[in-house]
Amino acid sequence: MVVAKNITLKSKGETDIIDITSEVGSAVRNSGIKNGIVTVFVQGATGGITTVEYEPGLVSDLKGAFEKLAARQGKYAHNEKWGDGNGFSHVRASLLGPSLTVPIKGGALMLGTWQQIIFIDFDNRPRSRELAVQIIGE
Amino acid sequence: MVVAKNITLKSKGETDIIDITSEVGSAVRNSGIKNGIVTVFVQGATGGITTVEYEPGLVSDLKGAFEKLAARQGKYAHNEKWGDGNGFSHVRASLLGPSLTVPIKGGALMLGTWQQIIFIDFDNRPRSRELAVQIIGE
Amino acid sequence: MVVAKNITLKSKGETDIIDITSEVGSAVRNSGIKNGIVTVFVQGATGGITTVEYEPGLVSDLKGAFEKLAARQGKYAHNEKWGDGNGFSHVRASLLGPSLTVPIKGGALMLGTWQQIIFIDFDNRPRSRELAVQIIGE
Repeated sequence: MVVAKNITLKSKGETDIIDITSEVGSAVRNSGIKNGIVTVFVQGATGGITTVEYEPGLVSDLKGAFEKLAARQGKYAHNEKWGDGNGFSHVRASLLGPSLTVPIKGGALMLGTWQQIIFIDFDNRPRSRELAVQIIGE
Repeated sequence: MVVAKNITLKSKGETDIIDITSEVGSAVRNSGIKNGIVTVFVQGATGGITTVEYEPGLVSDLKGAFEKLAARQGKYAHNEKWGDGNGFSHVRASLLGPSLTVPIKGGALMLGTWQQIIFIDFDNRPRSRELAVQIIGE
Repeated sequence: MVVAKNITLKSKGETDIIDITSEVGSAVRNSGIKNGIVTVFVQGATGGITTVEYEPGLVSDLKGAFEKLAARQGKYAHNEKWGDGNGFSHVRASLLGPSLTVPIKGGALMLGTWQQIIFIDFDNRPRSRELAVQIIGE
């Protein structure tokens, strides 16, 4: 069985890190699928998905790590050509990746106790976003 | 329903970044699966998969980011032991990861407008590659 | 068909890199699923999964790459708040990601010849771990 859901959200951009665990969990519960997997996917080239223990310290530490990976004020060929100034956003997003797949057991996400699913908006401006949530199982 | 396809390609190596969106899209259309997911997987330890807005500026910026992550001329224990000089290729590939899963809706990939699927060949020589494309759904 | 398996293991922590290919392969064989995908997932925020050519040189090189990405002795807001000293573990785990999906063909993992699946325990102490292995197919 395949059930397609989505999550809509507003982000502030600039490596805005948003906990979407409860939205993904609701989508899974509402799907009626008890055992299987869920894939959460960012439709866009300046966002990414991963997991983290969602607390303010780590949110700040992750932002620092991405600044080190691809500095906001670095030199990007993308910026020189297109002038939109978000070369750093694209590079960060490609390195992290747009997709996360999580197992489902008994209708619930199989996450660790201190593990949350996060969407990161790397773009350099506020965005409205739609994430695809594809649930497969029985 | 499970349909197995593959993509064969030739790469130049040296962080060659190749847009495989149309090949993955064709595999999905030819599978007959309308709703589900597709997993694209590199069978090999020196390649990776992600998405990007595929334009020459970002292709160049991504290459720069990988050089910063794991420098070609850095010191690698792998090179000292095996002498094949591709320690940087392996490290880059492991950090990016060999797998990408994308939702399918109405027989099409659920990508953003400016989002392409890329295979990156990090090896230090030209290669013939076969990517597994596994499509699951209904 | 969906089959849920798991892998239990003990790690030494401190970016302990463990080859779990044979455990994942056994889970797939025992599932009876011949064609499909397997998702391996770390239930926890300080571990990650990827593939590598598993040999001592690359194991050492990967550890070096993670030290460069997020230094053990760096300054982390997580450590200042919680005092458990594993801010670097969390940042490394979030950047690598907790999930890997591999295609299955004829009851076997579709890996390259020199490609192994690894679990990396980034935590700063020995841990007992349980990985979820979710197998979907026919």
